[in-house]
Amino acid sequence: MKLKLNLDYIENFVSPSDLASFDDRLNAAYTALLDGSGKGNDFIGWRDLLINYDKDEFARIKLAAEKIKKNSEVLLVIGIGGSYLGARAAIEFLKSPFYNNMKKDTPDVYFLGCSISSDELYEVMQLCEGRDVSVNVISKSGTTTEPAIAFRIIRGMMEKKYSKDELKERIFITTDKCRGTLKSFADREGYETFVVPDDDGGRFSVLTAVGLLPIAVCGIDIDKIMLGAQNARANYLEKGTESDACKYAAVRNALYQSGKKIELLCSYESAFRYMTEWWKQLYGESEGKDGLGIFPASVVFTTDLHSMGQYIQDGERTLFETVVMQNGAKNIVNVPYDEENLDGLNFIAEMPVTEVNKKAFLGTLLAHNDGGVPNIVIEYETRDEETFGEMVYFFEFACGISAYILDVNPFNQPGVEAYKKNMFALLGKPGYEELGKELRSRIENIK
Amino acid sequence: MKLKLNLDYIENFVSPSDLASFDDRLNAAYTALLDGSGKGNDFIGWRDLLINYDKDEFARIKLAAEKIKKNSEVLLVIGIGGSYLGARAAIEFLKSPFYNNMKKDTPDVYFLGCSISSDELYEVMQLCEGRDVSVNVISKSGTTTEPAIAFRIIRGMMEKKYSKDELKERIFITTDKCRGTLKSFADREGYETFVVPDDDGGRFSVLTAVGLLPIAVCGIDIDKIMLGAQNARANYLEKGTESDACKYAAVRNALYQSGKKIELLCSYESAFRYMTEWWKQLYGESEGKDGLGIFPASVVFTTDLHSMGQYIQDGERTLFETVVMQNGAKNIVNVPYDEENLDGLNFIAEMPVTEVNKKAFLGTLLAHNDGGVPNIVIEYETRDEETFGEMVYFFEFACGISAYILDVNPFNQPGVEAYKKNMFALLGKPGYEELGKELRSRIENIK
Repeated sequence: MKLKLNLDYIENFVSPSDLASFDDRLNAAYTALLDGSGKGNDFIGWRDLLINYDKDEFARIKLAAEKIKKNSEVLLVIGIGGSYLGARAAIEFLKSPFYNNMKKDTPDVYFLGCSISSDELYEVMQLCEGRDVSVNVISKSGTTTEPAIAFRIIRGMMEKKYSKDELKERIFITTDKCRGTLKSFADREGYETFVVPDDDGGRFSVLTAVGLLPIAVCGIDIDKIMLGAQNARANYLEKGTESDACKYAAVRNALYQSGKKIELLCSYESAFRYMTEWWKQLYGESEGKDGLGIFPASVVFTTDLHSMGQYIQDGERTLFETVVMQNGAKNIVNVPYDEENLDGLNFIAEMPVTEVNKKAFLGTLLAHNDGGVPNIVIEYETRDEETFGEMVYFFEFACGISAYILDVNPFNQPGVEAYKKNMFALLGKPGYEELGKELRSRIENIK
Repeated sequence: MKLKLNLDYIENFVSPSDLASFDDRLNAAYTALLDGSGKGNDFIGWRDLLINYDKDEFARIKLAAEKIKKNSEVLLVIGIGGSYLGARAAIEFLKSPFYNNMKKDTPDVYFLGCSISSDELYEVMQLCEGRDVSVNVISKSGTTTEPAIAFRIIRGMMEKKYSKDELKERIFITTDKCRGTLKSFADREGYETFVVPDDDGGRFSVLTAVGLLPIAVCGIDIDKIMLGAQNARANYLEKGTESDACKYAAVRNALYQSGKKIELLCSYESAFRYMTEWWKQLYGESEGKDGLGIFPASVVFTTDLHSMGQYIQDGERTLFETVVMQNGAKNIVNVPYDEENLDGLNFIAEMPVTEVNKKAFLGTLLAHNDGGVPNIVIEYETRDEETFGEMVYFFEFACGISAYILDVNPFNQPGVEAYKKNMFALLGKPGYEELGKELRSRIENIK
């Protein structure tokens, strides 16, 4: 396995007997996830999809990616939540947070339809000026407000740039297999479609066409990603409740029960930033319900040791850290020797920067432990496709188990509807007239 | 004033008498900040510096920015924590999160020395290949590990690219006025220097040379920024404890006392993302001590309504939101009319996207209020320099007051030293031998 879980740095906080007290709940959670008898069991497709996936569609994803690489300088990915976070995380992690600035033979990728910002829409259109563009719209229903608005605007831009026939080579729709607005639209226009599976929630969909098409466009090897996830799956099935994923699920529940209400996902690489955003959706949306759930937050060290570090060391003692540490690098840079040694750094001259980072990590572990902060540690060697696939499956599998231990449905998100309903009502959407009246009168009374 | 504070959406959570119970502490805090009698009073230079600043240096900042604009395609800013967050926040907010991708007549700006990532260092050097580069190193002492490592490496790169005389036009040092490694080095090499003031902590330094030089390089009007901050200062002095800054400070303490332990800074513009990072350092580092402090976290809506939205609506009821809402835009895009209306969006056809965003904001306010989440609202019109300056001063002033109400020293950060000491010891820095031995044996015993 590429990931190594290390629980040495929680031992002062969670005793073996504390942990053992979760055994029954862990066993029940594991059984429920495996035999599909748990809450939300209509949405556990992700558990086996990386084995059972549609091989023909997978081949089409690669072909479409090749086409986009050849004919485009920019790929616009239009989607929100689970429809963009996984792909963005993969691209930053496996390529670079500077991907769009790098010299390369693959297109720039910009994400749209994940906000309602006028400036963002305008600025991204500016970035497309004079350049060849393809579009991948990702929406199960086709009616989610944010991506639907962006697609209306971007369709206009594309129709000005290209003929109807050219658009068939440039617009790709990832949506429901047979129903919905986007599916009918794509069929009529002759746009190629890919499937958002029925039994997979958005936040569990990065290893389907939802994530894989934009990822493949960047020249990332999606076979290796699937292999990493498959290895994880095989391992977790073989090891049962002794797997690292199950241990992580149990330990974070034990910490939560002991009063640690905030989990900080920490890394030491800025390339990991969007992995933490993906993880926050995965855990926040899966567990944050019924008045329960660990609050997921994130930091990138060492930079945020000079920002959130003070709080972590000395603030309220209600948090724990899960540190995802990369030991190697794609490119090893050494600290240069400097004869004058004005900055006093010669004691680390010729040392690889990775080694300095590792010592910062170990020093921080001990410091935060001393400050009363338990640390779960996950180590990996470098940013490669197999590691990414394994990590995705690790966090997904652990998330299902963890939410079952907490006794909440990991696979729904009823709370996301509340703002949408209010927004529709305030925008005057037909069918929401009563609610609109009520909300407007509330706002007026408040003011 | 450009910012409008609206406390209507906390009224169900904090009663007037709850708030009034903070009056004495607020008065005392205000007095302490104004007469300089509070904790950490050596570091309240920021309070008046925007009036008393060194006008000659300010003029030199502008000249240096012009020089860099003319001779460079890339500016590398080397600094960590308060030495980069403010500038990065300003550039993304006032220019664009896509600034480095935009066609423009100002240099790209990359931030280095804010991590110990080998890949990041390597990738940024790649981005400099074949391009003209200037460097601004920002470090009070010159010995902070992260920027010192980066500067050693980047000096090597620059010395290969340029002659000694050319380097004098390309390396700018922001450091202590008279002491320290970087100051001596700069003087000897003939590099222009700017001052990190003595009486200003890093997180309060964006309106000094620390932030202003990189900001000016991007073509942002730093006079207007200062004007915005000056207006805020005049207003807060005139209004006393009735100012918006004081109200914000009191309200967040009242919420904290009522059990709201997490403050989420929310915006509806991705351009605001680094403003939230700047804010997290400001509040986390100022208040997170002595086992106290609101945990600062952030989200960008509507995107994170499809990620953290579920938790906010339905998770543990220990959080409140501070929403910074932008009502206008630099560029107004409308939702196009579509005769076919496949996506059903014609009920908002021809509506400005800013208006849709506003309704999403109002709908979310009400939904989160109904879910038990108090909302402090701060509104502004658009992303301009005056607004930025005012916002910086608003949050800084409120932060000082807020920490005094909490009875902690807003201006120190003792907890940041813990990881540094351990890191030095593990790296074998002379003078840390004993601690090194102790830590290594702890790590071995753990493993």
